[in-house]
Amino acid sequence: MAERDLIARLLAPLATHAAARGLADDAAVWAPPLGRDLVFSHDMMVEGVHFLGSDSPADIGWKLVASNASDLAAMAARPAGCLLALGLAPTADAAWQQRFVAGLGQALAAFDLALWGGDTSSSPVVTLGLTVIGHVEPGQAPARSTAQPGDTLWLSGTIGDAGLGLAMAKGELPPDPWLLKRHHRPTPRLALGRSLAGRATAAMDVSDGLLIDATRLAAASQVALHIDLDLIPLSPQARAHALTPLAAATSGDDYELLFTAPPHEQFDATPIGYVAPGTCLHLTAAGRPVPLPAHLGWEHTV
Amino acid sequence: MAERDLIARLLAPLATHAAARGLADDAAVWAPPLGRDLVFSHDMMVEGVHFLGSDSPADIGWKLVASNASDLAAMAARPAGCLLALGLAPTADAAWQQRFVAGLGQALAAFDLALWGGDTSSSPVVTLGLTVIGHVEPGQAPARSTAQPGDTLWLSGTIGDAGLGLAMAKGELPPDPWLLKRHHRPTPRLALGRSLAGRATAAMDVSDGLLIDATRLAAASQVALHIDLDLIPLSPQARAHALTPLAAATSGDDYELLFTAPPHEQFDATPIGYVAPGTCLHLTAAGRPVPLPAHLGWEHTV
Repeated sequence: MAERDLIARLLAPLATHAAARGLADDAAVWAPPLGRDLVFSHDMMVEGVHFLGSDSPADIGWKLVASNASDLAAMAARPAGCLLALGLAPTADAAWQQRFVAGLGQALAAFDLALWGGDTSSSPVVTLGLTVIGHVEPGQAPARSTAQPGDTLWLSGTIGDAGLGLAMAKGELPPDPWLLKRHHRPTPRLALGRSLAGRATAAMDVSDGLLIDATRLAAASQVALHIDLDLIPLSPQARAHALTPLAAATSGDDYELLFTAPPHEQFDATPIGYVAPGTCLHLTAAGRPVPLPAHLGWEHTV
Repeated sequence: MAERDLIARLLAPLATHAAARGLADDAAVWAPPLGRDLVFSHDMMVEGVHFLGSDSPADIGWKLVASNASDLAAMAARPAGCLLALGLAPTADAAWQQRFVAGLGQALAAFDLALWGGDTSSSPVVTLGLTVIGHVEPGQAPARSTAQPGDTLWLSGTIGDAGLGLAMAKGELPPDPWLLKRHHRPTPRLALGRSLAGRATAAMDVSDGLLIDATRLAAASQVALHIDLDLIPLSPQARAHALTPLAAATSGDDYELLFTAPPHEQFDATPIGYVAPGTCLHLTAAGRPVPLPAHLGWEHTV
């Protein structure tokens, strides 16, 4: 298909924001809200690496937006717009494209992101990228590197659900619709994220596994993080599958927020531990130390 | 290689701007200049589609930045920052990566773009994306759709050079270093582009061929464009290869600027025709009409 037909037929109907200029110009033009810091993130999703060719195109479209929006949430940012990189393999026919764009559009609407522009290309496998742009009060986007000893360590939502959903999608477990949805249609914690502005001392999103991501936050902040496994929030559905906190904390794809804040701050999330002087991650259960497992989560290779 | 090693070893040394936060956070954070419009573009380059695996990695890195910066030039924008999507195939080994990043870094320095962030992934073929962000005086970024009858039609630089350079790179012509460089290391017309702000009525960059891009500008603006082939600027090197204006105008990869402006405006570029009421592109040579060729330039397919 000619690139301009794809753009006109599928993408232009989503690009209704004035900044997109109807996808007709060389670039998007946006007048940002005055006096805000802007936040930028780009995440890729490659067929065979991040998803399978047999996965639902609509779910892939949703997840591309959700995983990127989760980065905005971790920076306490309000979503504004995005640019889509769409590398289409011959297998991604017109029906695939239509379903992908439908899922993408649902997520854009759900998370209040406007489609401003992007690029399309042919590609040997489906290769997706999304740049998301958001904004936050000046100086209030939390870093990973500024957790302070004495802070409380917080975690949003529940973890381990998406890992169980993945096992169900692979046929390794009998299906549960709610857990499958946690895998296929993650929800970035945007409202909670915005409440972190100026209150959290450090934040990041949990996408590779709680333990590995917590290790990264500890290293960046040069502090020790103490996590009580008994406090780790699990969903009733995960408990029904006898998921242990340790398994939940290494399963990945959660798109929850991990953050630190002074003890007097309260959030719609779960306190799971605290920040102390020192280094590394320290686990306890029933008041006793628990050794770190060998596998902390997902390490990406390139 | 672990993703974090690649980032630490090759990319972090380029990401010295404060907005990048050392590539350590979930996103980049930038305080934009007050009262400016922001301009965003994303272009992809896929191995086997936009370049060959045997091409110089440094040239690929340069061209990724240059082709994106050319979109900023067409919007009269000043470059600010960028996010890099780096999908690395097994063939792109450590030496390839180092040379790619060297060429990328040269172009970032040449065009005053800071590396703010991005993502890396493994990929079956090298798949590159770049989001560039720039800024312009409010309301002054030209569109493609606002050319006015009576305007002069302008073209920057010379065209056809990159097409000859490509033929040389393929071994179809004896090599000429200057023409090869025009193919491998295009120069976006950023200074000229900035001079368009508030003065050009419409603008775009010429990347697929002058005739096809002019046809797009005419269609977007619902006007007729008249081009005098005798006025088309050719380099002495292209003239030495007996390149005809018509061949130059359909060869692509020029990264020059095509724009319209009222007759009293002057630019460091060449007037090649004018805007009139009507539709389509109209060519003349030696004062007589010339029929449009069947091949106007490159039409992308996905």
